[in-house]
Amino acid sequence: MYDLIIIGAGPAGITAGIYASRLNLNTLLITKSFGGQVAKKAVAIENYPGFESILGPELTKKMEDHLKAQKINIEIDEVRKVEKTNNGFLVLTSGKKEFQAKAVILASGADPRPLEVPGEKEFIGKGVSYCSVCDGPIFKDKIVAIIGGGNAGFETAIFLAKIAKKIYILEYGSEVKAFEADQETVKKIGKVKIIKNAELKMIKGNKFVGSIIYEDTRTKKTNTLKVEGVFVEIGSQPATSYVKGLVDFNKKDEIKVEFETCQTRTPGLFAAGDLNVGRYKQIVTAAGEGAKAALAAYNYLQKLET
Amino acid sequence: MYDLIIIGAGPAGITAGIYASRLNLNTLLITKSFGGQVAKKAVAIENYPGFESILGPELTKKMEDHLKAQKINIEIDEVRKVEKTNNGFLVLTSGKKEFQAKAVILASGADPRPLEVPGEKEFIGKGVSYCSVCDGPIFKDKIVAIIGGGNAGFETAIFLAKIAKKIYILEYGSEVKAFEADQETVKKIGKVKIIKNAELKMIKGNKFVGSIIYEDTRTKKTNTLKVEGVFVEIGSQPATSYVKGLVDFNKKDEIKVEFETCQTRTPGLFAAGDLNVGRYKQIVTAAGEGAKAALAAYNYLQKLET
Repeated sequence: MYDLIIIGAGPAGITAGIYASRLNLNTLLITKSFGGQVAKKAVAIENYPGFESILGPELTKKMEDHLKAQKINIEIDEVRKVEKTNNGFLVLTSGKKEFQAKAVILASGADPRPLEVPGEKEFIGKGVSYCSVCDGPIFKDKIVAIIGGGNAGFETAIFLAKIAKKIYILEYGSEVKAFEADQETVKKIGKVKIIKNAELKMIKGNKFVGSIIYEDTRTKKTNTLKVEGVFVEIGSQPATSYVKGLVDFNKKDEIKVEFETCQTRTPGLFAAGDLNVGRYKQIVTAAGEGAKAALAAYNYLQKLET
Repeated sequence: MYDLIIIGAGPAGITAGIYASRLNLNTLLITKSFGGQVAKKAVAIENYPGFESILGPELTKKMEDHLKAQKINIEIDEVRKVEKTNNGFLVLTSGKKEFQAKAVILASGADPRPLEVPGEKEFIGKGVSYCSVCDGPIFKDKIVAIIGGGNAGFETAIFLAKIAKKIYILEYGSEVKAFEADQETVKKIGKVKIIKNAELKMIKGNKFVGSIIYEDTRTKKTNTLKVEGVFVEIGSQPATSYVKGLVDFNKKDEIKVEFETCQTRTPGLFAAGDLNVGRYKQIVTAAGEGAKAALAAYNYLQKLET
């Protein structure tokens, strides 16, 4: 029986692990890999305070080393289910192992839903982005396309308004589905063009994205747009299905938490980083939440024991 | 008229500054100095993810350099008042300057209330601590004294329960004032001794704290306790008086915020880091809040303009 099991080792899970170990909690961290989305960043990270410019894999290595310097048990495996027991939690893995703990921190992140069109994978980090607030500043004075005319797409357009030179929003349906207020805001920005009935077919370029090809779903005619960036905003898939029944979700399958402590509706079960409902998903905010969750778990365990 | 004024340059203010500049906001940061409490840390910082062990001044330098590499205006001065105007905020400084902005992020931190006894200043970072969650792990298996028998003092004892070998709580009054539940918890820990009617007179030691001298306020007899750490928990003084009338405070003069965005009750006015009501005050949590506040300020300004 561990004091604490942490699931995931992106910035949130790693920070939670560093804190939990230093608080003398008997901790197990279960993860498939280290660094989460940070490890996948091809462009330099310039917004994690203390590192003016650092590549994703390099920052991942530093965080991973920091974690492994602590007294913490690490299991390389994938969690497939978390269950509540009488005196804590049972964690089941794909590797057919079972672990028990008095408290659990969920930090397995979220994966953006991919477009699944030719060119997408090839240009990840080279013009294709799933995170406007992470990558937006790279597209200063450039022409970009946002794929997806829902709230996330319009929020992205608003976010990029001061940064990009021109913005296209491509919506598959015949109507955009964003909040009216955000539609009004986007209208007033001026440099945003909304293209409805547009099905993205391909992303093209050389070293970096150069254009996209889409089909008009009514006329079946294909069109080419010159763009230097493609923001994919067709929803995300937080890795949270394994914890159903113990937490509440919003419509995006993100886990509802009390933001001061990251606690879910189940006492002793915390959720830090990209998989919770928090609006701003950044490396440093995930790390901050990992620290909060570990400290809150520590307080929870202290009160449990006495 | 700036888009944004950031007040303070500890981890929260610096991170807000990095984010705001990268978001293309016309930003002014006003501060007396850089690094906040981090700059004052004599012991190594081992819980800021990415740096296994780094001295406070060294981490301060890295963050300060990171900030100064951005396009941001910096004014070395002290803010004495923030006022609401028709179209934003007016910020007045001790240097008799006036600045205007559409949004403001308060990040001027908090100073713990000092004991003002001989030896206190001398041993800061050498056994005297104002932050148990920051410095607690350094006192593993050591004897420590907590000065202050209020909620903060008892919370500190609970926090240190698994870390320290023995814990004294010194309370000036004839009764402790902590929540009953915490008093119960502390009783059950076993290794905590509460000393009432105790007025701390002096902190002694060589390179590191070695003992404290206190007076029994009834008998006027002085006593010596061998301790290797002194945690000062007699309240804090958030640097927030300059913003009265625009925000709500809790009993500790900390600013109430909505944790997801760090927004205060005044739209466009945000508070990140140690000066807000957040329970966990860490370098990485302050940095995370700085990022959230800057992103929320950006969203606020976008909606304002259009």
